[in-house]
Amino acid sequence: MTYCLGISTQAGLVIAADSRTNAGVDNVSTYRKLFDFSHPGDRVLLLCTSGNLSMTQAVINSLSKDLKVGADVNLHNLPSLHEVARYVGDKVRQIHDRDAEWLKKAGIDYNCSLLLGGQIRGEDPELFLVYSEGNSIQATVETPFLQIGETKYGKPILDRTITYETPLEAAAKCAILSLDSTMKSNISVGPPINVVLYQRDSFEIRHQLTLEPRDPYLTKVGKIWAEALRKAFDDVPDVDWTRSPNPEQY
Amino acid sequence: MTYCLGISTQAGLVIAADSRTNAGVDNVSTYRKLFDFSHPGDRVLLLCTSGNLSMTQAVINSLSKDLKVGADVNLHNLPSLHEVARYVGDKVRQIHDRDAEWLKKAGIDYNCSLLLGGQIRGEDPELFLVYSEGNSIQATVETPFLQIGETKYGKPILDRTITYETPLEAAAKCAILSLDSTMKSNISVGPPINVVLYQRDSFEIRHQLTLEPRDPYLTKVGKIWAEALRKAFDDVPDVDWTRSPNPEQY
Repeated sequence: MTYCLGISTQAGLVIAADSRTNAGVDNVSTYRKLFDFSHPGDRVLLLCTSGNLSMTQAVINSLSKDLKVGADVNLHNLPSLHEVARYVGDKVRQIHDRDAEWLKKAGIDYNCSLLLGGQIRGEDPELFLVYSEGNSIQATVETPFLQIGETKYGKPILDRTITYETPLEAAAKCAILSLDSTMKSNISVGPPINVVLYQRDSFEIRHQLTLEPRDPYLTKVGKIWAEALRKAFDDVPDVDWTRSPNPEQY
Repeated sequence: MTYCLGISTQAGLVIAADSRTNAGVDNVSTYRKLFDFSHPGDRVLLLCTSGNLSMTQAVINSLSKDLKVGADVNLHNLPSLHEVARYVGDKVRQIHDRDAEWLKKAGIDYNCSLLLGGQIRGEDPELFLVYSEGNSIQATVETPFLQIGETKYGKPILDRTITYETPLEAAAKCAILSLDSTMKSNISVGPPINVVLYQRDSFEIRHQLTLEPRDPYLTKVGKIWAEALRKAFDDVPDVDWTRSPNPEQY
């Protein structure tokens, strides 16, 4: 399984991903799922992948190849992130056309989805989710985060914490806690964790981190968060079983 | 959708359920999903249902009918909760045999699952999850809670808080927070919430509560929890992007 998330605030972007891949519980591996296709000074482009590994690797390879050979259309010459999202979606469709029938015959899940975050000079920072069908949606002021993969365990903390106004440092912390919650409840999501913080209009990545399995920051955060949660839990009053039905009592 | 959970600790049981049922987003209704089949003094039996409403109602009706007509085998004469779980599973299979083919033809999800918690005199309190196929699993000292329906949003708080040694009052509070988290992330799970706390060896229900949509306790708990979480979040240190790779630093 996989868990990747992107947060798009007024101050920039945070993108984070785990690195655990499994084909059954007896075949667990580590694959990086966060890819940096930036061209510093002109554009920052980050991609996260989820789903069938052969399909996502084929998409990433195809995007890299277009860059390498200087194809007419590539990640570094498209003028907007919206067009980049369409171009990535087209790649997904091409791989589908080639492989999906065969995978379907074998009963193998051939879906994949991607997060695309970044900023191109002259544009605002943006965050897209490219679906398995090649179409995409975009994060907005009202819904500033997008997730792919095992999304549910890590969503409550995002729902409670993230708004478009959240400072980037808080968003990065929240992304790590969201991953921490997911790793606690689903062992098929695991470290190393890749986190990138991108400051609006900087057009280069200045903050990135790989948190290894026993990384001291990850351990420390997990511990402090668990303690703080326990304290928060204690602060909530016990159920009042004998309370009167009169709401004014409270 | 539905979310029900049961917690089985050394001190007794907590069972909680929401009441929202939907057939598409344009057809949302309120149905109680927690049923009390206790025979005070002899046994406490609580059932929660999740899944296809026509199937779970048919199961509950069939169980009630057996009680009413004094069937040879019924909820009040089986000697152990394990046998009650098998009996409930048999009912699920009967309804499946009758209806599943027709629902399948129409492309309707015909699965259902149930939580069964309680205590029969001479036995320990126990908690079972009866699957759609009629088989069941049981909560244990190592895994003292079971969930059905929309389980993921509410699991992190249980994972972090509940052990077999957790006091019952804390377990009840945790059940409500688990439901609160789920309702926040999935609008198809909603109040009224039914909560029951059962004290081991009391053989009767002394603590139960129905929390209506704007119940002041629910509102208060939701608010205090949100504030406490925000404080907990603030307690976690920001990411140290410049930290040395030397673990001893921490």
